[in-house]
Amino acid sequence: MSEAVRACLIIIGNEILSGRTHDKNLPYLAEELNKLGIRLAETRVIPDIETTIIETVNECRAKFDYVFTTGGIGPTHDDITSPCVARAFGVEIELNAQAHELLKSHYENPADLNEARLRMAHIPVGAELVQNPVSKAPGFRMENVYVMAGVPMIMQAMFQGIKHQLIGGRPMVSRSVGGYIPEGTIAKVLGEIQHDFPDTDIGSYPFLREGKLGTTLVVRGEEAKDVDLASERIRAAIIEQGREVIEDSGAVS
Amino acid sequence: MSEAVRACLIIIGNEILSGRTHDKNLPYLAEELNKLGIRLAETRVIPDIETTIIETVNECRAKFDYVFTTGGIGPTHDDITSPCVARAFGVEIELNAQAHELLKSHYENPADLNEARLRMAHIPVGAELVQNPVSKAPGFRMENVYVMAGVPMIMQAMFQGIKHQLIGGRPMVSRSVGGYIPEGTIAKVLGEIQHDFPDTDIGSYPFLREGKLGTTLVVRGEEAKDVDLASERIRAAIIEQGREVIEDSGAVS
Repeated sequence: MSEAVRACLIIIGNEILSGRTHDKNLPYLAEELNKLGIRLAETRVIPDIETTIIETVNECRAKFDYVFTTGGIGPTHDDITSPCVARAFGVEIELNAQAHELLKSHYENPADLNEARLRMAHIPVGAELVQNPVSKAPGFRMENVYVMAGVPMIMQAMFQGIKHQLIGGRPMVSRSVGGYIPEGTIAKVLGEIQHDFPDTDIGSYPFLREGKLGTTLVVRGEEAKDVDLASERIRAAIIEQGREVIEDSGAVS
Repeated sequence: MSEAVRACLIIIGNEILSGRTHDKNLPYLAEELNKLGIRLAETRVIPDIETTIIETVNECRAKFDYVFTTGGIGPTHDDITSPCVARAFGVEIELNAQAHELLKSHYENPADLNEARLRMAHIPVGAELVQNPVSKAPGFRMENVYVMAGVPMIMQAMFQGIKHQLIGGRPMVSRSVGGYIPEGTIAKVLGEIQHDFPDTDIGSYPFLREGKLGTTLVVRGEEAKDVDLASERIRAAIIEQGREVIEDSGAVS
């Protein structure tokens, strides 16, 4: 397999770690990055604590090709991502003229652009803005770190605006084969198929449907030919065991 | 605030990072731990890669009071959590007699307990089993690290069996106050309330409902009195701005 382009997602917010809010940004980002030939290689969920944010950003930006953060760029006291990212890069945070204009254009009544909302125009020195078509308050990019909103609708709009900047490798091709066969019954031959196709990743995911145990096998790889051949071997193995192939969903991300 | 008991969840599995499977264990564990007075302080989602699992387990078990892992303890080639945890602790993995008996009792036909399934009875030397009332194949504990299944139903049953072993601090008390008031409008006074109640955490979560912007404010802390007083201040602040308080859901986790 060629050297993959690897990304890390840092989900910032006490509300995720308390279980109050269920994150929806990881699956979205994973699938979008995959289309660009970038692997989501790790995700961290961290609280709104300054030292934790700074340390995590610095560790991850050194380790991965791209880092995406979500959350903590709103107007309230618990929105501390922007100053923390500034500190991670050793720069100041400043009232960004372009971000200021965006917010001015968004609030018809100048009084609504209060001190709290102006915080959303304070951006690390040297950052490039990430546009927010939904509610104007921008995200930003510092080197390989993209700082985005936590609200999924806004995060998705921001990502659509920056994805052309990202340089990926070859996208992963994926095939899914399901069968009413327990994982442990197909495990041995699956290990052999994995061994024969080392450039693919074969994942095995058991399920229970209408009272019957089954397994979905997902083959992923950069070479469509390898992925197809490995999938065919799995299909054949299920049939050889006298079991029903229930699904071949073709390409999935 | 007293020194909190802190836990870390390590979610192991390519299927989570590819976006294929949406994790359900984080919110469950967060809420269950909170009842025990333990904070979920960080979560990592990592791929089925040996070095990553070993490094992450070793980093997190040194940093947090408790570590919980989910995923990667099934019978297939991509289930590598157990040997990786053994390596993290510098011990061998062995056929555990107790785990072997559990599996033997589960498979009526001895031929079904094949080589692949026997892998599920291979447990690090010195580990204590975590019972699996659903499908028998156990998890295990090594020191402060609990290794559990990824399938939510099994993970939850395993957790219910081990939670009496966990020693927590004071549980967090939480109150939620909602209002049809934009975040940026209440942000300033919210910052003041947070300042006056430093032992609470006040989170601010905007929403859009029936076309109206609103915010849910969540106050969390160990002292119910502080949490109540801070919540009352927030209620009063919403009313003072001529806005509607839409909800006071009382205790939420």
